Amino acid sequence: MSLQRRPLQPLPTIMIEPLVKMGLLEDLGRAGDLTSDAIAPADMTATAALVSRQPGVVAGLDLAGIAFRLIDDSVTIVRHRHDGDKVVAGDAIAEIRGPARAILTAERTALNFLCRLSGIASATASIVATVVNTNTRIVCTRKTTPGLRAIEKYAVRAGGGVNHRFGLDDAVLIKDNHIAIAGSVATAIERAKAGVGHLVKIEVEVDTLEQLEQALAEGIDAVLLDNMSIEQLRRAVDLVAGRAVTEASGRVTPETAPAIAATGVDLISIGWLTHSAPVLDIGLDFALSDD
Amino acid sequence: MSLQRRPLQPLPTIMIEPLVKMGLLEDLGRAGDLTSDAIAPADMTATAALVSRQPGVVAGLDLAGIAFRLIDDSVTIVRHRHDGDKVVAGDAIAEIRGPARAILTAERTALNFLCRLSGIASATASIVATVVNTNTRIVCTRKTTPGLRAIEKYAVRAGGGVNHRFGLDDAVLIKDNHIAIAGSVATAIERAKAGVGHLVKIEVEVDTLEQLEQALAEGIDAVLLDNMSIEQLRRAVDLVAGRAVTEASGRVTPETAPAIAATGVDLISIGWLTHSAPVLDIGLDFALSDD
Amino acid sequence: MSLQRRPLQPLPTIMIEPLVKMGLLEDLGRAGDLTSDAIAPADMTATAALVSRQPGVVAGLDLAGIAFRLIDDSVTIVRHRHDGDKVVAGDAIAEIRGPARAILTAERTALNFLCRLSGIASATASIVATVVNTNTRIVCTRKTTPGLRAIEKYAVRAGGGVNHRFGLDDAVLIKDNHIAIAGSVATAIERAKAGVGHLVKIEVEVDTLEQLEQALAEGIDAVLLDNMSIEQLRRAVDLVAGRAVTEASGRVTPETAPAIAATGVDLISIGWLTHSAPVLDIGLDFALSDD
Amino acid sequence: MSLQRRPLQPLPTIMIEPLVKMGLLEDLGRAGDLTSDAIAPADMTATAALVSRQPGVVAGLDLAGIAFRLIDDSVTIVRHRHDGDKVVAGDAIAEIRGPARAILTAERTALNFLCRLSGIASATASIVATVVNTNTRIVCTRKTTPGLRAIEKYAVRAGGGVNHRFGLDDAVLIKDNHIAIAGSVATAIERAKAGVGHLVKIEVEVDTLEQLEQALAEGIDAVLLDNMSIEQLRRAVDLVAGRAVTEASGRVTPETAPAIAATGVDLISIGWLTHSAPVLDIGLDFALSDD
Amino acid sequence: MSLQRRPLQPLPTIMIEPLVKMGLLEDLGRAGDLTSDAIAPADMTATAALVSRQPGVVAGLDLAGIAFRLIDDSVTIVRHRHDGDKVVAGDAIAEIRGPARAILTAERTALNFLCRLSGIASATASIVATVVNTNTRIVCTRKTTPGLRAIEKYAVRAGGGVNHRFGLDDAVLIKDNHIAIAGSVATAIERAKAGVGHLVKIEVEVDTLEQLEQALAEGIDAVLLDNMSIEQLRRAVDLVAGRAVTEASGRVTPETAPAIAATGVDLISIGWLTHSAPVLDIGLDFALSDD
Amino acid sequence: MSLQRRPLQPLPTIMIEPLVKMGLLEDLGRAGDLTSDAIAPADMTATAALVSRQPGVVAGLDLAGIAFRLIDDSVTIVRHRHDGDKVVAGDAIAEIRGPARAILTAERTALNFLCRLSGIASATASIVATVVNTNTRIVCTRKTTPGLRAIEKYAVRAGGGVNHRFGLDDAVLIKDNHIAIAGSVATAIERAKAGVGHLVKIEVEVDTLEQLEQALAEGIDAVLLDNMSIEQLRRAVDLVAGRAVTEASGRVTPETAPAIAATGVDLISIGWLTHSAPVLDIGLDFALSDD
Repeated sequence: MSLQRRPLQPLPTIMIEPLVKMGLLEDLGRAGDLTSDAIAPADMTATAALVSRQPGVVAGLDLAGIAFRLIDDSVTIVRHRHDGDKVVAGDAIAEIRGPARAILTAERTALNFLCRLSGIASATASIVATVVNTNTRIVCTRKTTPGLRAIEKYAVRAGGGVNHRFGLDDAVLIKDNHIAIAGSVATAIERAKAGVGHLVKIEVEVDTLEQLEQALAEGIDAVLLDNMSIEQLRRAVDLVAGRAVTEASGRVTPETAPAIAATGVDLISIGWLTHSAPVLDIGLDFALSDD
Repeated sequence: MSLQRRPLQPLPTIMIEPLVKMGLLEDLGRAGDLTSDAIAPADMTATAALVSRQPGVVAGLDLAGIAFRLIDDSVTIVRHRHDGDKVVAGDAIAEIRGPARAILTAERTALNFLCRLSGIASATASIVATVVNTNTRIVCTRKTTPGLRAIEKYAVRAGGGVNHRFGLDDAVLIKDNHIAIAGSVATAIERAKAGVGHLVKIEVEVDTLEQLEQALAEGIDAVLLDNMSIEQLRRAVDLVAGRAVTEASGRVTPETAPAIAATGVDLISIGWLTHSAPVLDIGLDFALSDD
Repeated sequence: MSLQRRPLQPLPTIMIEPLVKMGLLEDLGRAGDLTSDAIAPADMTATAALVSRQPGVVAGLDLAGIAFRLIDDSVTIVRHRHDGDKVVAGDAIAEIRGPARAILTAERTALNFLCRLSGIASATASIVATVVNTNTRIVCTRKTTPGLRAIEKYAVRAGGGVNHRFGLDDAVLIKDNHIAIAGSVATAIERAKAGVGHLVKIEVEVDTLEQLEQALAEGIDAVLLDNMSIEQLRRAVDLVAGRAVTEASGRVTPETAPAIAATGVDLISIGWLTHSAPVLDIGLDFALSDD
Repeated sequence: MSLQRRPLQPLPTIMIEPLVKMGLLEDLGRAGDLTSDAIAPADMTATAALVSRQPGVVAGLDLAGIAFRLIDDSVTIVRHRHDGDKVVAGDAIAEIRGPARAILTAERTALNFLCRLSGIASATASIVATVVNTNTRIVCTRKTTPGLRAIEKYAVRAGGGVNHRFGLDDAVLIKDNHIAIAGSVATAIERAKAGVGHLVKIEVEVDTLEQLEQALAEGIDAVLLDNMSIEQLRRAVDLVAGRAVTEASGRVTPETAPAIAATGVDLISIGWLTHSAPVLDIGLDFALSDD
Repeated sequence: MSLQRRPLQPLPTIMIEPLVKMGLLEDLGRAGDLTSDAIAPADMTATAALVSRQPGVVAGLDLAGIAFRLIDDSVTIVRHRHDGDKVVAGDAIAEIRGPARAILTAERTALNFLCRLSGIASATASIVATVVNTNTRIVCTRKTTPGLRAIEKYAVRAGGGVNHRFGLDDAVLIKDNHIAIAGSVATAIERAKAGVGHLVKIEVEVDTLEQLEQALAEGIDAVLLDNMSIEQLRRAVDLVAGRAVTEASGRVTPETAPAIAATGVDLISIGWLTHSAPVLDIGLDFALSDD
Repeated sequence: MSLQRRPLQPLPTIMIEPLVKMGLLEDLGRAGDLTSDAIAPADMTATAALVSRQPGVVAGLDLAGIAFRLIDDSVTIVRHRHDGDKVVAGDAIAEIRGPARAILTAERTALNFLCRLSGIASATASIVATVVNTNTRIVCTRKTTPGLRAIEKYAVRAGGGVNHRFGLDDAVLIKDNHIAIAGSVATAIERAKAGVGHLVKIEVEVDTLEQLEQALAEGIDAVLLDNMSIEQLRRAVDLVAGRAVTEASGRVTPETAPAIAATGVDLISIGWLTHSAPVLDIGLDFALSDD
């Protein structure tokens, strides 16, 4: 069974720069940064530190850096932490040098990306920590912010999590409504197998052990055990016996995760990581340059 | 002092349809909805209800509706609740009829918008409720999701909140770093006044009553009283004496809001509403059509 | 093993309309259709038939229809054939009615999509026909026209073929260069397994039976048997013994396909279907309306 | 009262480069610069001077520079004048060095931006000069070229003018039709105050002194005195007595501006600056390089 | 010689709708029409007339109509005049019915297009009128607003003018700098002929009769007689003797046009039509619906 | 008569970079290159040679280079062949150095452009070679891939061919259906002449010598002799007698081209060059760097 543990790989600039442009242009509007343009002399330089105000895991430094450099390409950035690194309150994550005006203009867009993605990474890391001594992995869902799925899934990886499918088109996930349409678990799986290519995996959501048996009889890659009790999960894992990846889902919390993991499921999926994790509070400490 | 209490107005379709397209295309990828295409017959119709699983305030129904209709324009939607309405767990918000496949394909994008915006509206309404008998209003910030500022600020309005500025270009907000650059509160305000047009308001962030006095002496539209104690806020409001809109900010919670409002500040601003509010749990209950 | 045999499903309009707009705007340039605007009276109506000039399989009717209707939404289209249908020379595929000028303006864009996609479908069908009595499927590659991958892969499906992966991000395909980087087949597979999620399949390209054995020992989903002789393929299939999907590739022609299929491989992949298939010659027979 | 007098600040590249790309691609079409490609050897270099053919004020040098560099990034530009500077006929504004072909290809796009924006700046400066010894400022309107509002408002600033609102969303301007809808000046203002946030200013257009009194009684930020006589304007300014910014509008010319300013109004708004100002005639003097 | 006199043909919606969207979104910004949303009840309907305040020629009604309908597709528009029609002051051009709010929100964008294009059409018609009894045609240039070339050239046609080339890629125009690069008129023409396809015409700009003779000797399609005196033009026309289209250019005014036309030149080109023509003053007269 | 023989000129980066971005983003999807990210260490460098596997003519090196550099701007490329150069099997066209991962990620997009455009160039060159000792040129059509017309027409030039019109808007081509609408060849030509500007050429498609005589009587720039026999072509060329460019079309092959050219026609047009030419097989030979 393949479960992602690789070192974190950056997303190509070509994938993330358009998102940063969208964020900056939304903030600049039609007149730019009225306040900084009026107050900061064009030739004044400054340094700024991105400092975490709370413990967590960092993600999004590439996007933050692009934000500053898209406003002024003379801005330089030195990183003290990297995406995926843990920080404690007070840690300086990166140091930025350049025109004071550019730093202030890009600040909010940079932080909006950095705090959000670090929030997702931190939430992921928190829950990963509760199952770290097991073989269970934490996995995200498609409950992401429209337009930001690629970077939010990246943030999950930064936090030590694993990615579920990225869209409707890269894997089959047969849910309760699909089964209702097909009439049975078996028919749904048969139609899916007849309908997709050889590099597409098939996962089936089941609510009961009866459905699980039907799904296993057809042969599938993964089962989503939805809202099952700990006891049901344990019996489901026994029943699967390695014939499919097992995924538990349904209102998981840091408190309930260890018991779920103890059932032996391969994956615990949590929509909360991307749809409701609070931001990590990272601030920008600004200082005028001595020179 | 003008503080928004208007009935909620919808955003023009031209402003929100591109966001829905972005969300749908991100989910459809290059092959579309593999699962539904394989399992659901093209001519099967269904009904679905958008049902709240918890109490809150609804926002985003226009976006959800556009999501379904962009996949299949024969989908019809009947609303039982409208944006800004309160719901309790179990309330049916809207009913959708159309091809089963289209409903399943658009479901996640529709819910990603609806749950997120309803989450913001609900969080706003919760905190608004704590100050409802005062003259204090709850206001959002620029700490929004890149690309979604217009709809997230709309969701704040749906929850009974008021909008702060929408970008760097529609109002001046002089912050601590701007004051440091200018050398004094007075100089910063003077530069701002000299630099912007007659329809641009100026707000100044102050940390102390001394700074507040300096700002008032210059004449400004609003003051942001940052991280002040209740006692400081009370003195600040006294000092302002109606000469400017007063805004309190800094880690406000439902518990602390009433005391802050009791100081007489006009506004309490809360970044949390847009950067960290959890989604409202809204689900889609699906049923095959009898006919 | 899941190999796509589903009835052909249309792509959502939201996925294909932008491509048609791109094609039309490229042809209209900055001045529109000089010739038709100068010669055809605005109120003259016409009928036109899309007629195949040679035998083949149709694909792309949705795109052709969108082309005409984007120029004038009063155009009506009646289909006599559908995507995936076989045609012989002289068959009328669809009939178009509307303003003469609109028909002439959209003609080339409509045909450029229709002839190209029908060409791919026809080439696919030709080669599928040579292996139709076997269990072997014909599969495409990523050697597609930049920007048109979704519709070219759709055309392969219309011709009875099966789709390989749609991009670099929906499945792992370990090629010779990846093995060279990793140092061994086994290391490459281990890294891949550690690096991807549970819904991502892994295929490995092997040149020799030794590599094949190494790959099977690691456990993989599919093997790409590259440029092997018929004898090697037969031995490879024996060796695999159902433990992985087997894919043969390398300069396959209609003449060689049956013998390759006879080795028992599951898939034969052919880049030629999308990168070099000639168009299907479909013309537009135009007639002025009687009325 | 805040009336913009700041030194001119450049717009961020991220805001203007897309406009230049749009202009260049519109000119290059599908085949590029047929003439220069056919005639100019690829390795021939040249110098060119941007020379004003008439007196005026320059604006748009950033856009012109981007035009040349987007065609060939080896082009270098030395500025002898800057945006906001006055020029007389014959003044060399900037010198360009680089491939002859690139200079000729980008010439028209560069000049189309530069001449248009300099035309707006020059028109603004002409009328500003007529009121320079008064406290009255010249302000633009929303009567701008679709798509170019940000840079046309910038050109107004370059000419010494002040910007009115940038869109429908950054300030309230209650016009005659809004008053007709509301039924009275007072009701319109009340609705506006109830409907917008604390950083949104409110201006009311009034035709009579009666309406003006009603507006002042409600409390507003600015009044637009539309098409009033000099005598009416004088009485209006007296009536306002500093309680609001006063703006005069209606077919202002350089001849009438001084008398209007003498009434003491704060602002004179002129749509003509952006909708009808003729271009400043700037040419490109081209010379082959000696080397 | 082919000189455009056709009835005016509309541009396809697909070419102009994106421009209208760009204009509307620029005006709506991130919060929409604050004023109309606050003041106009959602269910209030109104009628509005687009009324010319001065004599001229109308152009741009399609764009204006799209602006209103993109804000609210229930808006209906009845045209009393069409593009290319003459109007006098007070003429109602079109009548609009629909939601009051939609009419007010779209008003400025609709008028910005309509007034600008009508201004170009009117300026063109004015100068066309001075040469109406001759065989000389009035032609525009590439000195257009970046992004709006297609519609500005359309407006020239609406005014009775003829279009010059639309970009660098649809015809060759050899100018003085190209001749300097080539070393001679003959070499420049030879290179151009060798470099372009058989459907590309070649025009040469000449300053003297000597250059003209050289150009004619090579064989060209058209000559641009730049800044010549009336006497020079007359001799140039004689010299050409029908062997090429003759185009006069250089600071043409309504006063000088008749004499230029009297020389027998085929075309008079005027950049002023698109770069400096003032708008036609068209207003929107608004009335609440009786019902 | 002008028939393009110029040295091949590159297209400006601004015209082709968006196409490469489109291709790369289509391949990267939402998760990037799963395989290379998992297997190739970030700091491993490599060299790669683009090697032709068969004889032909190269086109598209600029696009291939942009593909690699957009993934990693540290990639360097040394060209051994240039666009328009002939290659034989085994020829190294260019050498690429840079991060191994970047080379593998961009490989397919780079090759998809390079192989397709080289295929068009090679097909063009093959047929050009058959008429090289004549005055006849080979010309392409508008039967191009939607979105790629500019680069496919460039590839035709790289192969020694000449370009026909680039769209509906840069020349008039009166076809059989236009003649049917107009009622006669003469009327069609008259309408066209009245409808277009002085820099637009007019070509007429004729099926018979009678139509040809009618067209010549009107005076036109070019005639398209459609599907005529060799004998008819010869008589048509005689009839034209230099009064128009002559273009033969209709299922031309390398075998039939010489006889067609021998009739003396100026142009032979072949849609096959862009709609059905197979790719040139170019591969990427990859090697890890020694260092």
